[in-house]
Amino acid sequence: MPDFADKLKPASPDGPSILAKERSQSDVPVDELAQHLLSRSDFLKRQEKILPVVSKDPLFNKTKQMNLSRPERYQLGLARAKKLRLLADQHGWDTKDQEMSQYLCDDVSPFMVHVSMWINTVREQGDDEQRRYWLPKIEAWEAIGCYAQTELGHGSNVRGIELQSRWDPKTKEFVLHSPTLTASKWWNGSMGRTGNHAIVIAQLLVPKSNESKELVNHGPHPFIVQIRDLKTHEPLDGIIVGDIGPKYGYAPMDNGYMLFDNFRIPHSAMLARYSKVDPNTSKYSKPANTAVVYGSLTFVRATIIMHARLIMARAVTNAVRYTSIRRQFSDRDSSDRSAPELSVLDYTTVQIRILPLLATAFALHYTGEAMHNLYEGTRAEIEKGDFGRLAVLHAQSSGLKSLCTELAANSIETCRRAMGGHGFMASSGMVQLNNDYLSKPTVEGDNHMITQQTASYLLKRMAAAVAGKGKPVDEVERDCREWLSKEHNRKMPTPKVLESDEEIVDAFRRRSRDQTYRAYVERDIKKRSWNSLLIQLRKISIAESQSILVKNFYDGVQSSTLSSPARKHLSTLFRLFALYTMDAEARDFAKAGAVSNDDLDELPFKIQELMAQVRPHAVSLVDSWKIPDFLLDSALGRYDGRVYEDLFNRAHRLNPLNEITFNPYYKNEEIIMGSGGGDVEKLLAKL
Amino acid sequence: MPDFADKLKPASPDGPSILAKERSQSDVPVDELAQHLLSRSDFLKRQEKILPVVSKDPLFNKTKQMNLSRPERYQLGLARAKKLRLLADQHGWDTKDQEMSQYLCDDVSPFMVHVSMWINTVREQGDDEQRRYWLPKIEAWEAIGCYAQTELGHGSNVRGIELQSRWDPKTKEFVLHSPTLTASKWWNGSMGRTGNHAIVIAQLLVPKSNESKELVNHGPHPFIVQIRDLKTHEPLDGIIVGDIGPKYGYAPMDNGYMLFDNFRIPHSAMLARYSKVDPNTSKYSKPANTAVVYGSLTFVRATIIMHARLIMARAVTNAVRYTSIRRQFSDRDSSDRSAPELSVLDYTTVQIRILPLLATAFALHYTGEAMHNLYEGTRAEIEKGDFGRLAVLHAQSSGLKSLCTELAANSIETCRRAMGGHGFMASSGMVQLNNDYLSKPTVEGDNHMITQQTASYLLKRMAAAVAGKGKPVDEVERDCREWLSKEHNRKMPTPKVLESDEEIVDAFRRRSRDQTYRAYVERDIKKRSWNSLLIQLRKISIAESQSILVKNFYDGVQSSTLSSPARKHLSTLFRLFALYTMDAEARDFAKAGAVSNDDLDELPFKIQELMAQVRPHAVSLVDSWKIPDFLLDSALGRYDGRVYEDLFNRAHRLNPLNEITFNPYYKNEEIIMGSGGGDVEKLLAKL
Repeated sequence: MPDFADKLKPASPDGPSILAKERSQSDVPVDELAQHLLSRSDFLKRQEKILPVVSKDPLFNKTKQMNLSRPERYQLGLARAKKLRLLADQHGWDTKDQEMSQYLCDDVSPFMVHVSMWINTVREQGDDEQRRYWLPKIEAWEAIGCYAQTELGHGSNVRGIELQSRWDPKTKEFVLHSPTLTASKWWNGSMGRTGNHAIVIAQLLVPKSNESKELVNHGPHPFIVQIRDLKTHEPLDGIIVGDIGPKYGYAPMDNGYMLFDNFRIPHSAMLARYSKVDPNTSKYSKPANTAVVYGSLTFVRATIIMHARLIMARAVTNAVRYTSIRRQFSDRDSSDRSAPELSVLDYTTVQIRILPLLATAFALHYTGEAMHNLYEGTRAEIEKGDFGRLAVLHAQSSGLKSLCTELAANSIETCRRAMGGHGFMASSGMVQLNNDYLSKPTVEGDNHMITQQTASYLLKRMAAAVAGKGKPVDEVERDCREWLSKEHNRKMPTPKVLESDEEIVDAFRRRSRDQTYRAYVERDIKKRSWNSLLIQLRKISIAESQSILVKNFYDGVQSSTLSSPARKHLSTLFRLFALYTMDAEARDFAKAGAVSNDDLDELPFKIQELMAQVRPHAVSLVDSWKIPDFLLDSALGRYDGRVYEDLFNRAHRLNPLNEITFNPYYKNEEIIMGSGGGDVEKLLAKL
Repeated sequence: MPDFADKLKPASPDGPSILAKERSQSDVPVDELAQHLLSRSDFLKRQEKILPVVSKDPLFNKTKQMNLSRPERYQLGLARAKKLRLLADQHGWDTKDQEMSQYLCDDVSPFMVHVSMWINTVREQGDDEQRRYWLPKIEAWEAIGCYAQTELGHGSNVRGIELQSRWDPKTKEFVLHSPTLTASKWWNGSMGRTGNHAIVIAQLLVPKSNESKELVNHGPHPFIVQIRDLKTHEPLDGIIVGDIGPKYGYAPMDNGYMLFDNFRIPHSAMLARYSKVDPNTSKYSKPANTAVVYGSLTFVRATIIMHARLIMARAVTNAVRYTSIRRQFSDRDSSDRSAPELSVLDYTTVQIRILPLLATAFALHYTGEAMHNLYEGTRAEIEKGDFGRLAVLHAQSSGLKSLCTELAANSIETCRRAMGGHGFMASSGMVQLNNDYLSKPTVEGDNHMITQQTASYLLKRMAAAVAGKGKPVDEVERDCREWLSKEHNRKMPTPKVLESDEEIVDAFRRRSRDQTYRAYVERDIKKRSWNSLLIQLRKISIAESQSILVKNFYDGVQSSTLSSPARKHLSTLFRLFALYTMDAEARDFAKAGAVSNDDLDELPFKIQELMAQVRPHAVSLVDSWKIPDFLLDSALGRYDGRVYEDLFNRAHRLNPLNEITFNPYYKNEEIIMGSGGGDVEKLLAKL
């Protein structure tokens, strides 16, 4: 409906002219940098190909979806996921294309587990016959599956799960049974409403012999189980299954619960590539190498690390563009009382929250790439039966998953708060981003818990280095030996971190080694209990992960063939990331003799200087991440800068609440004006 | 519907027996401590009186509300707020009773601004006649109002707002006009759908004389304006008003936008207790003292500080109870492979996240009380025309609002993550708590921005102390002088923070003074620009606020008449809070000469020791906050410990998504099984 607001414009300078000015003042080669960041697997080309298809379909309109109820969000998620699969068939999209369409859609898909853990587990753990039988049905989305491992009472400690799968030699069946309420499967994605099958992880109980009543527990094993009727989609008898209810984010995902009441499944249900129960003798045979399972978890963690940079880039894109446009107060030291208001991003208290995160997005990029290469290399070796590098990969991926998801998750909220009041609106594009991403610090290994894996590895290598027998087993041990003989004995001068980027890298390395050595002394020499050292162990995992981030960033920029302006800006971002990280833990660096106290005192000033160098290029630097407006779905972060027009449009023209007139008078029982009553009863029915 | 899940119980030990054991092992005098914490204004008695009334009314059932859409959440919020007012009439509740009912209901009320800023502004800024006319209508909830100050383009910088109110001497009216889109009122609570009136803040433009065309801008002034028809509740002609759309939290609150198109209001609309325009001569007369406005803002900030402790106590109650019950892995150092799993709260990496926050809730309590007393004392003086202490109150309340809301907001998310996977569920009771509370770091003065007010005050006092002329104007200046003559010149020994609580207090004081002095040198001696010092200025605000928190905690425990076990536990919590805070900023304390490097090195061990002392009493300590289950609305934090039963019940029996069966097959256009199609079209209509 036309009204007088149609003619109003924002006060000048308006967003488009501000961003135009920001862009014109910068020498950042945006397209070159975009290629540098996003060329692997043709990411950028793929984005350009898929974006028009998805964004023009009205089912993928995002602007009003925050108004929907949780059940509606699941329905929408299901409709979108089905549509994306249809589009894939229609356009002949490959797996990577489909992943891109999912990424741009930005709703977690109820089929997410179907296309990842479900199909991967059948591929990796099914024997040839199982693969032949199941994979075509899975690829056709007819056997729609999920991965039911975690239970109500047990998550991280997989060995503690309570669901039982008892082998019955008489009927040659397994009997799935939940002995307790805490044995209920819980959290398993795609299971609550979507899946008709599941990989079910249960304690495998096998009689000592065909005649024996004594059961031996062989630990958790995977079974492939039909859980719902293929026609009615209702749960099969003996199974209780449903959705666990609303969550922080992930509204379109039906994380589920499931209980079994002596539910019988055939012998062929047990995934049999590695472990087997002989159907005739009931003899159990073990997997050759349990490290295979690690491989898969490590891949998931590596993927999470590679994804974190895009999350952070998105948060920072919104924050940088909006705080460039937003004006607030004129310079306090200005004598001119009518001086124009400053851009919010010109305030150092805003810069210190946003610009180091901009630098961090780049840091995560280089480590994501390095993890990708390490994973691919290691996987090739594993396929050949060489598990040698798996320990390093597993240790690095644990600590980095923890640190990188922590950095990315916190960056969203930090940026959101830096965006002031409007950051609190759904129109900021930060709300769903945050709500969904906040699952990451917990899933696939709780961020605090898994740092023990990195620490444990580092302690072993340091102990071996101290022992110093034979050749070092890997480069970490080699470096520990070198550190022990040189830096630990203070035979090397303190790195000059304000003068050389290489010495920054060295300072991080030294501080990590020092932290590991201190923990080694506590654990191996003073024999302190593991649990009393957990806080310290987490610190050494963080120190090592930061060292890896810094080194990969440095190496990535050094080894690139970028133009000189691109390298200049990346080097500034490298310094900002490294010195900001160092400043936050300055005392550790001092204690390690890795940085002088004078240099540490200077860091805050140096960081401010670096931020001043980044500031004029901030808009162009976020542009180089090429996050499309369709993905941002943000009035504040949109490329053209029409912040206020978009905010107003969403509020005034796209807000369903404004279509209803209410009755605010408390003595009147109407809630909706003119309803004549009965509104409260309708609400009560939903409570 | 009965099913086999009805008979299942959680694995033992179950929650109730674990919590019973935790409670029996502790000598914390829970009721005594509860009285100590919650007796002001009969808080605890009031809670006991109101709780049964609200909790037995089904309209206040919370468990399923996270499934509702945003428009439904507003409707529910409106229905609840109207019902609470009816209950107040019926039970004769006074204002504090009504606040308690609101607190327990835990939905932000669409009338929140009506009962606070709207009525307060009329009371404080209306002249006698305006008060006589408006207050009865407001108290009867007939003139339902809001406070329209913030605009789309301006929040913190109130002087920059764009809405104009031009005095027209001919018609003796003011003309409200929005010249731009950014002049739209924005964020104003209770305005979008609820209010029929508003206090509208606009730039007052008055002709130089009745005949002149030249307008003089007298800055922002308040006007009382009817905005909607009292019968139809539709906006009046010349006004566009609506709700701004979904937000992070605050779903039941209709934060609004509003534009005026040459909308005329009578002379009586201008609130005239302080500023006036003479209707005959058009002469403008100024307020006597602008500090009055500060008083009101300071009160709001003091209230926010007092509220923060209850938010934190709530987060920590959920976290402590659940992590006591939750088991994960057995002790890694145990040789017994069948050893029972440890309580999650026994892991130091979980303790370090939760227990310092438990201590912080107590710290916030004592400073909340101190702010309350300072405010009451200062207000009594202001009423007598003495504005002397207003500067201290304003400075303290700014820095403390910033620090306390930051601590409380971050505590929710920290606790939520420490609760692992189940913390991500709405049933954790942490989701709405977080989403709503996250507004606090931004509202009533952005947390980063307002630290300048504290810093500016401290710099002035330090400069005066350096000048040293005449008598110090207040105790801060007196203390600065003492610090300059003694500690600054290192004439005093370094405090022994590991030996004496009093010296902990002294260390915080010294570190704050040292930080202020360093900033004073940069600003007043080296003449550095204000904007280049913002990061440092924020640090001195934090240092001073932490010093206040530590001192008030210490004084509060010292001056109390508590039993010896209560004092013992409070002293341990005091040390934990203080030393944990110190450890996080250890380098500043070292540079200030406030703590020795040896003591700083010892802090992590000391903190771990203190946590070990708190751990056995953690459940009883959170019990002493007496947060009712109805308010917690948490399966994880409930008093009786029936965690898994409640989680399962909410998922299996109270989840509307489980009432629908879906069609997951992508080639079928049905979304709901058996619908026969058309589901997607219904979804599209909402996008």
